[in-house]
Amino acid sequence: MSTTATLVTGGAGFIGSHVVDHLVRDGVPVVVIDNLSNTTRRLIQPHLDSGAAVLHELDVLDTDAVAEIMAGGVGRVIHLAASVDMRVALENNWIDIEQSILATRSVLEAMRHSGVGHITFSSSSTVYGEPSIRPTAEHHGPMLPISVYGAAKLGAEGLISAYNHLYGIEGAIFRFGNVVGGRMNHGVIFDFLRKLERDPKRLEVLGDGLQRKNYFLAEDCARGIIELAHHANGGVLVANLGTTDTVTVTRIAEIVLAELGLDAEIAFGTGVRGWPGDVPVVEFDLSRAHELGWTASKQSEEAIREAVRRLIQEESHG
Amino acid sequence: MSTTATLVTGGAGFIGSHVVDHLVRDGVPVVVIDNLSNTTRRLIQPHLDSGAAVLHELDVLDTDAVAEIMAGGVGRVIHLAASVDMRVALENNWIDIEQSILATRSVLEAMRHSGVGHITFSSSSTVYGEPSIRPTAEHHGPMLPISVYGAAKLGAEGLISAYNHLYGIEGAIFRFGNVVGGRMNHGVIFDFLRKLERDPKRLEVLGDGLQRKNYFLAEDCARGIIELAHHANGGVLVANLGTTDTVTVTRIAEIVLAELGLDAEIAFGTGVRGWPGDVPVVEFDLSRAHELGWTASKQSEEAIREAVRRLIQEESHG
Repeated sequence: MSTTATLVTGGAGFIGSHVVDHLVRDGVPVVVIDNLSNTTRRLIQPHLDSGAAVLHELDVLDTDAVAEIMAGGVGRVIHLAASVDMRVALENNWIDIEQSILATRSVLEAMRHSGVGHITFSSSSTVYGEPSIRPTAEHHGPMLPISVYGAAKLGAEGLISAYNHLYGIEGAIFRFGNVVGGRMNHGVIFDFLRKLERDPKRLEVLGDGLQRKNYFLAEDCARGIIELAHHANGGVLVANLGTTDTVTVTRIAEIVLAELGLDAEIAFGTGVRGWPGDVPVVEFDLSRAHELGWTASKQSEEAIREAVRRLIQEESHG
Repeated sequence: MSTTATLVTGGAGFIGSHVVDHLVRDGVPVVVIDNLSNTTRRLIQPHLDSGAAVLHELDVLDTDAVAEIMAGGVGRVIHLAASVDMRVALENNWIDIEQSILATRSVLEAMRHSGVGHITFSSSSTVYGEPSIRPTAEHHGPMLPISVYGAAKLGAEGLISAYNHLYGIEGAIFRFGNVVGGRMNHGVIFDFLRKLERDPKRLEVLGDGLQRKNYFLAEDCARGIIELAHHANGGVLVANLGTTDTVTVTRIAEIVLAELGLDAEIAFGTGVRGWPGDVPVVEFDLSRAHELGWTASKQSEEAIREAVRRLIQEESHG
């Protein structure tokens, strides 16, 4: 393996596999660590077959094993391994503590001990909680997340900042809006398609449908984190990634129905949130990412339409 | 035990024992949980003897045991249990992860399961890292701590915010400047006194001595967190507690020497920090605490002088 290999934790997952695609296209040797808890090797199988990427089926909590892989020639880390569904954790949130905070510390410890000098990290809009200022920029404060998922991402950001100062590990922290696209196996679009498979006459929406957030394609996300990471420049970069507009959950339901050619009744729930800890409005100030030279290729509504089409296509080919 | 008892975690420690003093003076029944890892029962022995306080020698990581104690009639929690010395954790920072993040989660879980509705939390100026704006107010961002201690405090703040939203637990988060006073068993003043005991001719200072921070008395700290906590008002309060001025480490050395009547040489180290992760300048915007009605009774230099005198007195009586 070349010393310029990029390690992608969670690289077999939804976003991770798009990142691996991008790196392989760039000719970068890729090492993937994934415990396959939320995915299979299928999403990156072509790259495993071609030898462009290697997969270690492993939990990043195993610091020693991760450090050993790093010592084998990894030049930088893109750390995406995390818990993926905020909704499962209401009763038992240990998964968020373990998979975000402890997993990030484990990756950082492995980097420290093996001498790897750069981490790109997938943070989230959830770190802002319900911000008093929207669109929300990176310097917003105080940070008052309303989910344990968001609190864990905030703690992980803090660890990356500390390791930058203490051990010189460069950190590029990207706070994602809602990432959508082919290969999704969770989230609102995925849920809507599943529900309509079961009952094409009626689509149940969590909450009042007025939640509105920004959405962007996984390919744009992958391009963003790969192209902007070097702006950390030895220190810590914090940048929102997403789109400047927002789309309501009701509109997503309408797009899904239109793409499927269905005329189902949309049944709304009550309350402004889809689930406890859901932030009803996520609106990003993207000045920083734009100034650094990245813009999403599609705004929210087009990104959603594109994601719906790909999921339908994958389903029909699946 | 009355249902209005206050549980103080870390209540046998330096700050904790001052908080217990204050509560007992107010006639509030006090329950202390402390693992006595950094202290002994001596600091609160009078209150244990009088029956005003009870002590459970226990680690707060034992969620079930903590929940059982809470269910016995605790009305609110003041959570001070934490790792106390940032400097020990450079090689192995697990203590900060465990004693700040996991300990806070454990206390919150115990509260959720036993139905206790208020937590007051001792956060720290370290959550700000090296802020671009000084004096620094609570809405400062982004939060980029430079120590794992600070990252862990930031993660713990996030958890308190999440538990407020998800489970209705009111949270009063206080970011402390440097707390000083009698009973200290760590920190710069304590270190200086120890060093001068060993060698009264020469006092070694970590760093260039120009580090300047705000200092306030433990009694003022205890009064602040007890008097201001209700302003959380069902939500989350974040407030700096400290003094508006700063004192350099060199000046602290001079005060210590003057109080001891010694004429030692002050030997300076190099670099702007006392240790890796040390923030050289900590200057607080205290508008919020002042507006809520709390002001430290002594500014930094007087607080330091007072702390030095008490420590010298304790030493001579110890």
